[in-house]
Amino acid sequence: MSHTLAELAEHVGGKVEGDEACVIDNVASLISAEHSQISFYASGKHNQALVDTNAGAVILSTQHVDLSPTNSIVVENPQLAFALIAEKLNLPEKLSGIHKDASVDPTASIDPSAYVGAQSVVAAGAEIKSGVMIGASCTIGKDCVVGENSLLHANVTLNDKTIIGNDALIHSGAVIGSDGFGFANDQGRWVRIPQLGKVVIGDDVEVGANTTIDRGALDDTVIGNGVKLDNQIQIAHNVIIGDHTAIAGCVGIAGSTVIGRYCTIAGGVGITGQLEIADNVHITATSLVTQSISQSGAYSSGTPLQENAKWQRNFVRFRQLDDMAKRLKRIEKKFDNK
Amino acid sequence: MSHTLAELAEHVGGKVEGDEACVIDNVASLISAEHSQISFYASGKHNQALVDTNAGAVILSTQHVDLSPTNSIVVENPQLAFALIAEKLNLPEKLSGIHKDASVDPTASIDPSAYVGAQSVVAAGAEIKSGVMIGASCTIGKDCVVGENSLLHANVTLNDKTIIGNDALIHSGAVIGSDGFGFANDQGRWVRIPQLGKVVIGDDVEVGANTTIDRGALDDTVIGNGVKLDNQIQIAHNVIIGDHTAIAGCVGIAGSTVIGRYCTIAGGVGITGQLEIADNVHITATSLVTQSISQSGAYSSGTPLQENAKWQRNFVRFRQLDDMAKRLKRIEKKFDNK
Amino acid sequence: MSHTLAELAEHVGGKVEGDEACVIDNVASLISAEHSQISFYASGKHNQALVDTNAGAVILSTQHVDLSPTNSIVVENPQLAFALIAEKLNLPEKLSGIHKDASVDPTASIDPSAYVGAQSVVAAGAEIKSGVMIGASCTIGKDCVVGENSLLHANVTLNDKTIIGNDALIHSGAVIGSDGFGFANDQGRWVRIPQLGKVVIGDDVEVGANTTIDRGALDDTVIGNGVKLDNQIQIAHNVIIGDHTAIAGCVGIAGSTVIGRYCTIAGGVGITGQLEIADNVHITATSLVTQSISQSGAYSSGTPLQENAKWQRNFVRFRQLDDMAKRLKRIEKKFDNK
Repeated sequence: MSHTLAELAEHVGGKVEGDEACVIDNVASLISAEHSQISFYASGKHNQALVDTNAGAVILSTQHVDLSPTNSIVVENPQLAFALIAEKLNLPEKLSGIHKDASVDPTASIDPSAYVGAQSVVAAGAEIKSGVMIGASCTIGKDCVVGENSLLHANVTLNDKTIIGNDALIHSGAVIGSDGFGFANDQGRWVRIPQLGKVVIGDDVEVGANTTIDRGALDDTVIGNGVKLDNQIQIAHNVIIGDHTAIAGCVGIAGSTVIGRYCTIAGGVGITGQLEIADNVHITATSLVTQSISQSGAYSSGTPLQENAKWQRNFVRFRQLDDMAKRLKRIEKKFDNK
Repeated sequence: MSHTLAELAEHVGGKVEGDEACVIDNVASLISAEHSQISFYASGKHNQALVDTNAGAVILSTQHVDLSPTNSIVVENPQLAFALIAEKLNLPEKLSGIHKDASVDPTASIDPSAYVGAQSVVAAGAEIKSGVMIGASCTIGKDCVVGENSLLHANVTLNDKTIIGNDALIHSGAVIGSDGFGFANDQGRWVRIPQLGKVVIGDDVEVGANTTIDRGALDDTVIGNGVKLDNQIQIAHNVIIGDHTAIAGCVGIAGSTVIGRYCTIAGGVGITGQLEIADNVHITATSLVTQSISQSGAYSSGTPLQENAKWQRNFVRFRQLDDMAKRLKRIEKKFDNK
Repeated sequence: MSHTLAELAEHVGGKVEGDEACVIDNVASLISAEHSQISFYASGKHNQALVDTNAGAVILSTQHVDLSPTNSIVVENPQLAFALIAEKLNLPEKLSGIHKDASVDPTASIDPSAYVGAQSVVAAGAEIKSGVMIGASCTIGKDCVVGENSLLHANVTLNDKTIIGNDALIHSGAVIGSDGFGFANDQGRWVRIPQLGKVVIGDDVEVGANTTIDRGALDDTVIGNGVKLDNQIQIAHNVIIGDHTAIAGCVGIAGSTVIGRYCTIAGGVGITGQLEIADNVHITATSLVTQSISQSGAYSSGTPLQENAKWQRNFVRFRQLDDMAKRLKRIEKKFDNK
């Protein structure tokens, strides 16, 4: 899909410096871009890549426009403009209809503009709205709803009654609506508590590959609008995630925890159950959160990487930390009393 | 499915206070329950929710019966009774037969009372016993056995020769019987050691969504009776897990480790290989276990979450911990010798 | 598949001590081996298992040959010889053709010697080379290439344009080529950056069950030759992994990080984005890597497991570590100045 620089600039509310008629057919990095491609320059770093680029045009902000060796689109937020232009130049192929090798229950409702891929299953009572694309080998359980223009890549599983909003992007291997992990204990033996809630996902949500979201026990698990979930995340029953929060890969969130809006949670973080995390909280990689956080801000836990031999010595000393603290206090007291 | 309070009380060995003929059709939380629903009250907390409930009945223990504003079922363990009543009111739909869009090898043995869902594959020599439900898009490998009344949700993969006991509940995306991660090293190049064992799972086991259990290298990987595994757990080759142990999400257990009975392992814990963990061991979230544990009890590792700026200072100091310990000792020695 | 000891010894360049005509039909552990089976003995430990074995033959090195109670194959690296012999005795069944319940696009190219299993999907333009085995319920996206003799177990997903080299072994639930996690921020709202690169995997690579590898944003995500990836690993967009590096389960590697050759990364490690890790780096279990590593060697982070009550005291003290360091310095200064 090709566009002139003028069209692309208009799409992002930018201003062209140079040849407005220049035709662009795709995006590329500054280093690999060719003359028919557009790239972007965001920070003050990598000056040289900008100066040396063979791109047909570069997206950048006013303060860097003099560095551009080629046509430019000048905007306030070059990365955002790049995202929008990259999307415009790479619109996904639109299909509609039901693949002959799909298995669709006669009571499911599939909008004529939607697509269901090969070997996919749509169970009884499910509702697939307009513009939805369901890739190959997906399973849509009973009474699920998939909102308008949502895209499910191959091999997504929605268990019964899952509700997906509009404009979702769900990646392969994701499982939404699996049972929560809830048991009563009968003299050592675990007895399942039936998981009767569902998963409700808002609009414009992304769910990464092999991420799992459990259904609620009685009430629902809720993912807000604009939430972005990376791969291999585990979200337990009755978790609530606020709008526009982004969570990186391998995070685990235990049952009934409520996460605020506009949070960012980095990779590998663990959050225990029944907590409340405020809006605008940012947690760094592999931190463990065991208490509620009521103030916005950045939080961390963990210890630094070291050469194994040095680490080993500090590792062992950690066992004495409380003892060391007490001994230090004793010395201070004696010393300061003299 | 509706039952009178008398019927439900009898099912859990409880005693009705109030109207035995009251008809209940489902469970709900104290806050959201309506008059045709039953709820439960376990702890001494949330008094107000109990006092304000609109539930038709509440399950509770003798000491709280006076707080109930409605009919009650009085039992010793309200949570357990709730689990059993919730199950009775929500019996899963029973299907039998093979969906027309399933692919079943003629040498597989499917009990007439079992069900195989759409797009599922049952390979040669597999045995599906009575009352089994296999959801959509499952793959049952060669010579697998699935025990009586087990339920596999959509998109479960059993690799060849996997043995599942009776009454299993296996969630979507689970992979059981994948190869263990075993290699010999040939001058830097890794050479696979064929993984020839299998996975053997006992009765009444739950396996969470996207959990993986590798087959043994020579002998088998063994999951005991009543074991409950949450989502996204990784169990390596030749691990043995004792009966009635429960493991939360995102735990990884490395090769040949043996876990005892009645253990609980919280989310995100890592356990290295070749260890032995005793019965009744409880490990808190995201701990790392690198040595065997021979005594029952609770164990932990890790450091606390802090505001990033404060954490950064302590994080850096960890590198000096051994040095600090030595310096403290030196000061103590000098001081006490004076 | 049976072979004489002479044939097996020749296969691994070893020397038979004992009966060269002894017929072996499989491998087993020293403890469980029967007379038709061969086992191996690598370390100086478990002497007794060797002395007591009923195996028909044992693979070992010169220094242990006197301990063998039976026929021996003497080699330099017994574990390597065992791997090669185990493979020779357990060659996987070779199938070819397209299962009647597979769904193959007419524009896909499937070599006649390749196999596509039941309920699998091969999309338009995909190329499946000679000797490839694709298990049941796999999805091969558009324009993917699967190299010669690669084996995909059941339920593998390759998203569009993924390139797999020769001799790959890919386990169930793996997702290769999912979108990277990349967004621009528009006043709090996340806007997707289209992920336009692909995943390119070298020869002789293993990918574990439920492991995810994201496609690059603009350029590609690259997995080198001989790389071995265990289960539940997350590899983000534009990561590059050097040849012959092995990564254990549950590791997460964030975007654009470059890992060297011949590295080993133990289970549960987290590596943040944009880092460079040198060749021959070895990282121990659940370490967090937040800075580049330029020197080969072993690296670790983390704190030791303790009984919960003792740990709790040290855990709390970690918050004071910087303060303790300063107080210690003050005392030292005062003391040494006296």
